[in-house]
Amino acid sequence: MSARGRAPRRLDETEAVRLFSRAFATSTRGLGIGIGDDAAVLALGGKRLVLTVDAQVEHTHFERSFMTLEDVGFRAFQAAASDLAAMGARPLAALSALTLPRGFSGRELERLTAGQAEAARGCRCPIVGGNVARGPVLSVTTTVLGTAARPLARSGARPGDEVWLVGEVGLAGAGLALLQQRKHGGRDGAVAAALAAFRRPRALLTRGLAVARVAHAAIDVSDGLALDAGRIARASGCRVVLEERALERALPRPLMSLAGRLGRSALDFALTGGEDYALVVTGPARDRPRFARRIGRCERGRGGVWEPHDGSARPLAGGFDHFSS
Amino acid sequence: MSARGRAPRRLDETEAVRLFSRAFATSTRGLGIGIGDDAAVLALGGKRLVLTVDAQVEHTHFERSFMTLEDVGFRAFQAAASDLAAMGARPLAALSALTLPRGFSGRELERLTAGQAEAARGCRCPIVGGNVARGPVLSVTTTVLGTAARPLARSGARPGDEVWLVGEVGLAGAGLALLQQRKHGGRDGAVAAALAAFRRPRALLTRGLAVARVAHAAIDVSDGLALDAGRIARASGCRVVLEERALERALPRPLMSLAGRLGRSALDFALTGGEDYALVVTGPARDRPRFARRIGRCERGRGGVWEPHDGSARPLAGGFDHFSS
Repeated sequence: MSARGRAPRRLDETEAVRLFSRAFATSTRGLGIGIGDDAAVLALGGKRLVLTVDAQVEHTHFERSFMTLEDVGFRAFQAAASDLAAMGARPLAALSALTLPRGFSGRELERLTAGQAEAARGCRCPIVGGNVARGPVLSVTTTVLGTAARPLARSGARPGDEVWLVGEVGLAGAGLALLQQRKHGGRDGAVAAALAAFRRPRALLTRGLAVARVAHAAIDVSDGLALDAGRIARASGCRVVLEERALERALPRPLMSLAGRLGRSALDFALTGGEDYALVVTGPARDRPRFARRIGRCERGRGGVWEPHDGSARPLAGGFDHFSS
Repeated sequence: MSARGRAPRRLDETEAVRLFSRAFATSTRGLGIGIGDDAAVLALGGKRLVLTVDAQVEHTHFERSFMTLEDVGFRAFQAAASDLAAMGARPLAALSALTLPRGFSGRELERLTAGQAEAARGCRCPIVGGNVARGPVLSVTTTVLGTAARPLARSGARPGDEVWLVGEVGLAGAGLALLQQRKHGGRDGAVAAALAAFRRPRALLTRGLAVARVAHAAIDVSDGLALDAGRIARASGCRVVLEERALERALPRPLMSLAGRLGRSALDFALTGGEDYALVVTGPARDRPRFARRIGRCERGRGGVWEPHDGSARPLAGGFDHFSS
């Protein structure tokens, strides 16, 4: 439906975020990077404080049948910390708000929080406070704070930039598909890698800090490369071209064997799989760090564009919308 | 059940908070005030940063039949800001994580966020970021950040301190009871005051800042005076005595007429009503601000104690446990 239509639009994630951002737009004016980026940035006594919050809700973002409670806690923390990585921020502290369903036991709470604490230690981002409430399903809402000398926004991409991939895409989505299709049995190394990518993602904080020194823009790929590349294009007012040839070279090796087994292409997992927490970064070719792989380029124009081997171009679409799924 | 019992304890709020705090205790060591207080405190470049998060979950903390969506948003924000008031902190910024049920419309989201934005403006605490997710019920999780020259903890009460009440207690609980018993019709001024106290609480930020200059300890009374006075006693390692004679003088006038209609005493609403967001503060008699009313005293000893007119003493018990309700 068109944005100008008279009938009420269905409330999908894009529309919900648009209304949310509009409601609070006035109050954030003059504060620098605000609503709509991976994290907000505040100036505080000569420091730049980076803040973000992420919620993981049972039956929306995870199923307890697909992972242990330790995994749920670990993953929820890393998902929030990943937004700090995308901003090039150094973690400072976190808060955790838990909603626990009736019948959730003390032992279960210990396992959930053990996973959170393990992730917090790994990220050097202590959980210093929180909230526990009763609710219909398990949910873990994590606020993380960090500091950044030069925070990276989505909006800084420029024509002429390369598009870089930091970390891996596709494997976590394949891990989820294996679980959904009950094809995760056996001792296959590729299966194990995919399940680990899905259950135990790691926020790329060190690489985020390193890349922030040279990059122009960044986003974390939690919703699939296609959707998040488009977000950089929109925020930066330029065209982001993802090149099939370049992306193929950057795909994780285990994904190739798994994709066939799952009846989807490896590229499809990379572009629309979600759950990855890799970083998409843009910056000048001469400054590309060794750990960053070139997967495309920025040009004058608009939108996210997919460039297959034949050199044609079509709009990037798709991605993983937790809100409407 | 005893803490030493072998059978698993039922997971009530106290036990959940104990397990939560234990899980993250290691990571917060050396950071000053941490888990278990109204908010956490971090040192950052010469400033003291105060952080807290609060969740309001449908059917646990509110019913949409009892208030408008604007009220839900307004109240959720004030509930979180009230923890800053209790710490004597000046608001800096907030994040809002919303969980929206299927069928929640764009118009409904606008009303919810309008209430949040109104409260944020009133508190001079802009909402600078957030998260929107799908979930089974409506929930509003608010993170607030502030700064404090000298943060007030629960743990600073000393024998010899007076116990002060800042703001009003009992009226919001009476407002909730009126709604639950469907006795909220008509144009009665007392009813209107109680409904407003319940639906539109206000974090006492200015008074919190003023009292922080002289007080030793503070807490916000979100769960009823009895429970929260006991929390100060436990955290401070002293006895907190609430005096019936003194508390009676501090009760809001409309509460008297409403209590009879609702079949409970005004004191009962004040002690166990919850939903108030007043502050309980301890400090030296000579420094009591004019807006603070004396309702008791701190002594050597342990626990929260109720002192009726006859001068006897019994342990303070009760309060509003959202977790097991």
